[in-house]
Amino acid sequence: MENENKFKIRTDLAVELEEDINKKQNKIDGVKVERRYINDGKISVTRVVITSNEGARAIGKPKGTYITLESEDMGKTGEGYHREMSGALSVYLRELLPVTKDKLTILVAGLGNKNATADSLGPRVVENLCVTRLMNESVGNTELFDNDMYELCAIAPGVLAETGMESAEIIEGVVKKIKADVVIAVDALSARKSNRLNTTIQISNSGINPGSGVGNHRMEITKKNIGVPVIAIGIPTVIDAATIVNDTFDNLMEVMKMSGGMETYVKVLKSFNDEEKYQLIKEVISPELQEMYVTPKDEDATVKYISYTISEGLNIIFT
Amino acid sequence: MENENKFKIRTDLAVELEEDINKKQNKIDGVKVERRYINDGKISVTRVVITSNEGARAIGKPKGTYITLESEDMGKTGEGYHREMSGALSVYLRELLPVTKDKLTILVAGLGNKNATADSLGPRVVENLCVTRLMNESVGNTELFDNDMYELCAIAPGVLAETGMESAEIIEGVVKKIKADVVIAVDALSARKSNRLNTTIQISNSGINPGSGVGNHRMEITKKNIGVPVIAIGIPTVIDAATIVNDTFDNLMEVMKMSGGMETYVKVLKSFNDEEKYQLIKEVISPELQEMYVTPKDEDATVKYISYTISEGLNIIFT
Amino acid sequence: MENENKFKIRTDLAVELEEDINKKQNKIDGVKVERRYINDGKISVTRVVITSNEGARAIGKPKGTYITLESEDMGKTGEGYHREMSGALSVYLRELLPVTKDKLTILVAGLGNKNATADSLGPRVVENLCVTRLMNESVGNTELFDNDMYELCAIAPGVLAETGMESAEIIEGVVKKIKADVVIAVDALSARKSNRLNTTIQISNSGINPGSGVGNHRMEITKKNIGVPVIAIGIPTVIDAATIVNDTFDNLMEVMKMSGGMETYVKVLKSFNDEEKYQLIKEVISPELQEMYVTPKDEDATVKYISYTISEGLNIIFT
Amino acid sequence: MENENKFKIRTDLAVELEEDINKKQNKIDGVKVERRYINDGKISVTRVVITSNEGARAIGKPKGTYITLESEDMGKTGEGYHREMSGALSVYLRELLPVTKDKLTILVAGLGNKNATADSLGPRVVENLCVTRLMNESVGNTELFDNDMYELCAIAPGVLAETGMESAEIIEGVVKKIKADVVIAVDALSARKSNRLNTTIQISNSGINPGSGVGNHRMEITKKNIGVPVIAIGIPTVIDAATIVNDTFDNLMEVMKMSGGMETYVKVLKSFNDEEKYQLIKEVISPELQEMYVTPKDEDATVKYISYTISEGLNIIFT
Repeated sequence: MENENKFKIRTDLAVELEEDINKKQNKIDGVKVERRYINDGKISVTRVVITSNEGARAIGKPKGTYITLESEDMGKTGEGYHREMSGALSVYLRELLPVTKDKLTILVAGLGNKNATADSLGPRVVENLCVTRLMNESVGNTELFDNDMYELCAIAPGVLAETGMESAEIIEGVVKKIKADVVIAVDALSARKSNRLNTTIQISNSGINPGSGVGNHRMEITKKNIGVPVIAIGIPTVIDAATIVNDTFDNLMEVMKMSGGMETYVKVLKSFNDEEKYQLIKEVISPELQEMYVTPKDEDATVKYISYTISEGLNIIFT
Repeated sequence: MENENKFKIRTDLAVELEEDINKKQNKIDGVKVERRYINDGKISVTRVVITSNEGARAIGKPKGTYITLESEDMGKTGEGYHREMSGALSVYLRELLPVTKDKLTILVAGLGNKNATADSLGPRVVENLCVTRLMNESVGNTELFDNDMYELCAIAPGVLAETGMESAEIIEGVVKKIKADVVIAVDALSARKSNRLNTTIQISNSGINPGSGVGNHRMEITKKNIGVPVIAIGIPTVIDAATIVNDTFDNLMEVMKMSGGMETYVKVLKSFNDEEKYQLIKEVISPELQEMYVTPKDEDATVKYISYTISEGLNIIFT
Repeated sequence: MENENKFKIRTDLAVELEEDINKKQNKIDGVKVERRYINDGKISVTRVVITSNEGARAIGKPKGTYITLESEDMGKTGEGYHREMSGALSVYLRELLPVTKDKLTILVAGLGNKNATADSLGPRVVENLCVTRLMNESVGNTELFDNDMYELCAIAPGVLAETGMESAEIIEGVVKKIKADVVIAVDALSARKSNRLNTTIQISNSGINPGSGVGNHRMEITKKNIGVPVIAIGIPTVIDAATIVNDTFDNLMEVMKMSGGMETYVKVLKSFNDEEKYQLIKEVISPELQEMYVTPKDEDATVKYISYTISEGLNIIFT
Repeated sequence: MENENKFKIRTDLAVELEEDINKKQNKIDGVKVERRYINDGKISVTRVVITSNEGARAIGKPKGTYITLESEDMGKTGEGYHREMSGALSVYLRELLPVTKDKLTILVAGLGNKNATADSLGPRVVENLCVTRLMNESVGNTELFDNDMYELCAIAPGVLAETGMESAEIIEGVVKKIKADVVIAVDALSARKSNRLNTTIQISNSGINPGSGVGNHRMEITKKNIGVPVIAIGIPTVIDAATIVNDTFDNLMEVMKMSGGMETYVKVLKSFNDEEKYQLIKEVISPELQEMYVTPKDEDATVKYISYTISEGLNIIFT
């Protein structure tokens, strides 16, 4: 298995992994994929359900449900439109929440580094949440109305270099102390395709796994680890450097092929499959690039808008 | 007792409470006070040790040691000078740390609201700390040198209105998870005298008590509550509104007395003792003022400088 | 005149000054006051028009129109309601804009210190504006739709201690370079009555005068100084310390009077008029208090909400 | 000429351009290069002086002096070391300041977007400067000591998308109003080689040219444009995407060559010179990548440290 994973393409999006495999036409057992469109086709909803270990191994993600909302305009300004995305998020997130008659205590964890623009999505979402837990006792928060299904609290655990602690440690400690029933972890992700940046929300019930997220969490934030179900909300805000080289590489081959007369050259490269080519690049890419990411120049504005969209989606459910 | 406490003056500084009582010449059993000067008299060090319940009741603070460092220029810029305050802090803080042969895991908790200037001291201190825990494992932190006595980690738990959790809950949860041995809680305080603003650091081993701090913590952060010793570092950055009225009141009386011919008026007010006068004002002050604080216009610069002073003092010990 | 001004009460709100004078039943020539209610009485609109020098002297404000919008809930959260205030702001602000057939270039100046919570209103408003000037040429701003009446640009000039320049200098320099036709200066103000905090928006066409605003601008930002009309939008976020003592004082007198038997005492104080009492307090208040302000503990949340309300009101007109 | 420029490699560092040309062994008239080492070889100082139009065309930079300070550890923490870099900056910056007997008014302009980590260097430098202009008149700034050679003021003009104005417009307007004698523009740059990130300070007297800087200024900030000499201080904090592909490409070729047996393939690529290869990649790289940059994951910490280094270097001269 290790060998297979070694060749996985670096992305946090199940939908991208699934596409890579489908390209190679081999149907995977234990992986169900369905896609539909809502809001007059403005938002596409892809549901990837991984039910078998084979499926998990093939996709390179743990078993679970991965719902991907896509909309070209999510990163853009324009009030009205965000509302639709927030609405969609609230609908599909609710679907993954445990069903119970007891009031649920929900802890939202905004992962990432508030001081690094592309990684600041999680902490920004927390800043715009309306928490409800303890609010009746506390003064000064007047606009609170009682929600009889949920008690919401939130934390931005920061990053290891700032705190000397894994986000997973802080979250687990807090969850046990306040007896939270569910964790919703919001994180900035790394995407494989640049056109997925800031257009996609992935909701999954499999938690956050090591190496995922812009900040590359080392300790997993999952039910196994935290003790309660962990729903992950992820938005791609960066691409890793190797991906970019890889994409350029493909375009380059096309150009060369057209310009013709370079059969050998093209044959050589054609002889690599996706994983091999990517791996080759990974190996020759300068080591310092491994620690870099690629992000749009206007990412600060985009992250600001998207964080409101996510917060609003959560506020719809929990307040 | 309740009655006595009802008349306590609002301050988080043991040294101020002690002064109020000494004014009335009554020696208190179980309260030892000593004052000395260091750095050619530039910094005064007052140690108030409360050993009996009577003392605690009289002062209105729990039993424990309260070390107050005072220096007129702390809030001012001027590199060199901060170093001396940082040095003094490191010396007297070390004195309150538990002695052990085992390596201690220290959790620094920066209390308060990072978005409210006068209350942002704690979170700012955390931002400038050099945490050491897990740093050998983690990448990218090159300048780390091993400290064989301490492992430092840090958290800014935020405020109830943001998180829906008491700071005490977050800290206790984290302490238990990472098995911290000591908590150092840094907080902005409320002072009785405006000349104490930004000139004073109080270090105590009695933790943080309800209603103390600019943000008025409702749940105490003490060994009893958290399970490990809690050392509190407090810096006054605000004064409460009633204090200001009270001080003005006193000045007013002096003026009136001098201007003479108003014996009755002065007699009336003279007939009140400090607590009664303060209480009277508390009662007649507009209710909304109870939820306000008074802070200097340049507090943002001052808090910035002082947070470096505190961080530096901690870095001297722990890195 | 100087003498009269010496006794003016410290407030930036024309409506408060006018009230003080009306209390004393003396009708002022050249001061027209009308009050109405909109949005089912939720918002009160007071228009004070000062047309004569006598009026200006009596009120202690330059000649001009002062429109005050008041709504108890402005500082509170609750989406829907802010919209109404934003709408009202856009209506009454438009009324003060010069009428012309040419396209107007508007410079919004967000005055104040972004790092001091209560003074950060202006800079925050700028952060949430949709500027339109040069946006057609520039990339990345897709949702822009052309406004054929206005070109909007914005600046947060910072404060003297940060920049070494008066806000007025920066604004004048920029206005001349970009040939702006109007300046809209947004600033946090100081109020006389604590119940006006975060409930009031004052719009005036007389600009910003020395000593006004939380940051106490020393150089006026007016047509005379800048060269183009200056419309000021001010929101009270602080009260000065003397005001608080003064208010408490009044309450105190009431209490004493009721409690009776202290005729002399009350007579003494009753013998002062408002200005004298305030002035007396100003004189006896500790000098350092002159450099302080009083602000609510939850001011950070309030300023955040109100800054959105103002930005939204401007965006309604200019985008 | 246009043709030549079309093939220039994207970098803001004169020293890199000069290297590219020297690689091709052709001595350039009107370009003088000297390199020396200071601080026991810890800091290298390269001075590129372009005196002729030929030289300017060949290097692709305007005529002027470009001093490059390089030190591997600049981006790292560790107090002591920053001091040396700050010291070196102050020495070489002073060299480029106009000599006069009159007191000079200096305007520091911190260019870039404070909300985008890699672009926030300029605004952060301004935040840590000790401005001196107007400070004697103003209150509260106690630590000021008179400098009889310079009056320092500073501004962070923000970015077009926020302000609707070019930085050049704001700077010119302010310069004319306050009669500044010199502008020092601090900006985050784009580098050609990833090993130059956060290790290099470029000081030049040729100002800021269109398309330079992370934010890609469209209007030049030069003496011609602003009216007074403009000294630029630039620090590379990002690499553009095409550069990364290009570097990987070269490594790839090496690998392939070694692995042997692919003569044709290597010949094909070898037949391109640097500019052609880079240009080819520019053409095939996905268009959206043109609007992206590559930055290290820990850039937030690095930018924080470097901004202090620059501020300190300026404070040494001007306070």
